[in-house]
Amino acid sequence: MSGTVGQVIHCRAAVAWEAGKPLVIEQVEVAPPQAMEVRMKILYTSLCHTDVYFWEAKGQNPLFPRIYGHEAGGIVESVGEGVTDLKPGDHVLPIFTGECKECAHCKSEESNMCDLLRINTDRGVMLSDGKSRFSIKGQPIYHFLGTSTFSEYTVVHVGCIAKINPLAPLDKVCVLSCGISTGLGAMVNVAKPPKGSTVAVFGLGAVGLAAAEGARIAGASRIIGVDLNPNRFQGAKKFGVTEFVNPKDHNKPVQEVIAEMTNGGVDRSVECTGNVEAMISAFECVHDGWGVAVLVGVPHKDAVFKTHPINLLNERTLKGTFFGNYKPRSDIPSVVEKYMSKELEVEKFITHQVPFSEINKAFDYMLKGESLRCIIHMEE
Amino acid sequence: MSGTVGQVIHCRAAVAWEAGKPLVIEQVEVAPPQAMEVRMKILYTSLCHTDVYFWEAKGQNPLFPRIYGHEAGGIVESVGEGVTDLKPGDHVLPIFTGECKECAHCKSEESNMCDLLRINTDRGVMLSDGKSRFSIKGQPIYHFLGTSTFSEYTVVHVGCIAKINPLAPLDKVCVLSCGISTGLGAMVNVAKPPKGSTVAVFGLGAVGLAAAEGARIAGASRIIGVDLNPNRFQGAKKFGVTEFVNPKDHNKPVQEVIAEMTNGGVDRSVECTGNVEAMISAFECVHDGWGVAVLVGVPHKDAVFKTHPINLLNERTLKGTFFGNYKPRSDIPSVVEKYMSKELEVEKFITHQVPFSEINKAFDYMLKGESLRCIIHMEE
Ligand SMILES: NC(=O)c1ccc[n+]([C@@H]2O[C@H](COP(=O)([O-])OP(=O)(O)OC[C@H]3O[C@@H](n4cnc5c(N)ncnc54)[C@H](O)[C@@H]3O)[C@@H](O)[C@H]2O)c1
Ligand SMILES: NC(=O)c1ccc[n+]([C@@H]2O[C@H](COP(=O)([O-])OP(=O)(O)OC[C@H]3O[C@@H](n4cnc5c(N)ncnc54)[C@H](O)[C@@H]3O)[C@@H](O)[C@H]2O)c1
Ligand SMILES: [Zn+2]
Ligand SMILES: [Zn+2]
Repeated sequence: MSGTVGQVIHCRAAVAWEAGKPLVIEQVEVAPPQAMEVRMKILYTSLCHTDVYFWEAKGQNPLFPRIYGHEAGGIVESVGEGVTDLKPGDHVLPIFTGECKECAHCKSEESNMCDLLRINTDRGVMLSDGKSRFSIKGQPIYHFLGTSTFSEYTVVHVGCIAKINPLAPLDKVCVLSCGISTGLGAMVNVAKPPKGSTVAVFGLGAVGLAAAEGARIAGASRIIGVDLNPNRFQGAKKFGVTEFVNPKDHNKPVQEVIAEMTNGGVDRSVECTGNVEAMISAFECVHDGWGVAVLVGVPHKDAVFKTHPINLLNERTLKGTFFGNYKPRSDIPSVVEKYMSKELEVEKFITHQVPFSEINKAFDYMLKGESLRCIIHMEE
Repeated sequence: MSGTVGQVIHCRAAVAWEAGKPLVIEQVEVAPPQAMEVRMKILYTSLCHTDVYFWEAKGQNPLFPRIYGHEAGGIVESVGEGVTDLKPGDHVLPIFTGECKECAHCKSEESNMCDLLRINTDRGVMLSDGKSRFSIKGQPIYHFLGTSTFSEYTVVHVGCIAKINPLAPLDKVCVLSCGISTGLGAMVNVAKPPKGSTVAVFGLGAVGLAAAEGARIAGASRIIGVDLNPNRFQGAKKFGVTEFVNPKDHNKPVQEVIAEMTNGGVDRSVECTGNVEAMISAFECVHDGWGVAVLVGVPHKDAVFKTHPINLLNERTLKGTFFGNYKPRSDIPSVVEKYMSKELEVEKFITHQVPFSEINKAFDYMLKGESLRCIIHMEE
């Protein structure tokens, strides 16, 4: 690869020219990495709801043309000035949120919300110089989440790159860049169900199923899946979900249904829907005295969480988490190791595969609710 | 004392005949303890807001005539059938909430909300037979919180009695029965501020000052006291409070004021007001990434806690606690030891003393907001 170091790379990228319109595979120019940046070759990328949400651009500032994509696996091509812990050839996962290792959050054992590199959905340029590294015949193309993995090459801040075991198959572990780690970490790092405990998971998309997988790994005795869509139930059994509740099947609040099923409430619950009513139910369905509820879903900007304070005084705990409380550089390599040691099963999240040239199919599968994760093969 | 075992004891008690009317010192009959009950001689009792609140009986079911009182220290006179871990002469504190040692809560390391003996403000009789142990010429007098310490002798369930070090001065440690342990435990057991951290305490009554005392013991570097009543500030310095904020002095929400004072928020906050607006502020003033807020105050029954879920997703934790998460029998003896080892300072909470015959003065001091704790000497 050394022939490309310091040069502009010409390669294929899937460009979104307009909100909601199919991506177009274009020849793009990818500039060399600047200080504290890394240029990487993407081998596999997968599609997450967040890509679709910002591509649809309903209710946010639209920023086009843009290259989406943030779940991926690849190999370092070259590094910019000051990058000392990565070198060409390293196997890496780009991450949509970063770890500068210097700020109060990075120094705290509890937080992963880096002051410098925290997720920023509005920024379409690199942090250092406010410019894009992508262009088409000189016209800048915006970045997305600092990752823009729907391109054969991309430039990422070194703080947003996890260096992983080179033996890990990138076509599998690429899904650990975002949603799967988010759900898994919400359960194992934040909810922390004791062995034998009862757990509820609200929302059985990829994030919720990863939370269920975390509960299975932790040895929960009952994992109650809650979803409004009954089609989600059959597949969820593979992820350790033992019982299902559809709030629509009951004429009382689902938290009451769960309390009745569990002699007063579950020990832990994790909400992965983004719906504020589900957040309230997830909180109120945990047992008094010791129950812990964890919120993961990204709510509507006008949503209000409401509860009677007595629900808190009765010794329930309510927490939220971002990216499963994982620090991207420090912790994600060990999530990959969980897969390598067969503790964490990743294959069952991967329901579809497409070549890069057919990337728009991945959008269709997700919009129809058919896929959990669709792997996009860049070299095909 | 053995002459009284198995006999009805005739002694003085302060009886509330009507809501809000001065207590009347009466001769009462105190029946012997039944199975799993203990009769104790009260030496010192103190007055807490909860006594005043139920004596005023605004908005609750009034239950009169009744003997109030629940913060106290005394000596076991006799025990009922099945009581094996207490004997006449033991020094004890009665506690308004109990520990049966058998239920799921008592067996959980996290909860102190015993299923059998959890606080019950509506019950005016003993659990075993639904009857009162107090009478005046045969007319039953209701109990309060299972303790009724405004009597020279009282009968309490064994699960609501902490056996303490007989060397501990009962005229001091009696205040550890309720409010002081509540605030202290909320801080040291639930908020758990790391050494050097910044802490906010909302409400600087006895409970909030005990929370501040807990933060001082834990080695907090800044303790910000928040109260609407500026008269609370001067005295609070003795409890380690380093800075004061009166929400009335600012034209923006107090959580913003605190965030500005602390570069983004405090590490821990504890709310001891009972006001739901203060609860919301106490939650929103903790730092994202690692902040923990703990609710202690008992809210109005129609109060609604409201916040934007993003405040949770940004990795804040919200908890509530009851009696500082202390288990009465297992943990309160060690709180007394904290006083004995001079780690915990109790004297500064005791601002007034009255003989039993003048118990109504204790109500006056509290209603005027002059006292933190007034010790009532039963033998005077
Ligand atoms: N915090 C983070 O770091 C992070 C990272 C990735 C995704 N997320 C969020 O996690 C959430 C889930 O993501 P996903 O990809 O699994 O989404 P998804 O759309 O595939 O799954 C969500 C599921 O929730 C169900 N649902 C919706 N409302 C419900 C309700 N009221 N009760 C019960 N079920 C309900 C839907 O039927 C659906 O099956 C989203 O809000 C997403 O934005 C958060
Ligand atoms: N959870 C428990 O186990 C437990 C036990 C005992 C007491 N409590 C509760 O703790 C709370 C405090 O008890 P206390 O005896 O210290 O009461 P207190 O009345 O002496 O003190 C409360 C203080 O809060 C202040 N305050 C009220 N609203 C405020 C606001 N919006 N912002 C800032 N300050 C405000 C008042 O000015 C007052 O100084 C009460 O709600 C009481 O019921 C709970
Ligand atoms: Zn950082
Ligand atoms: Zn119990």
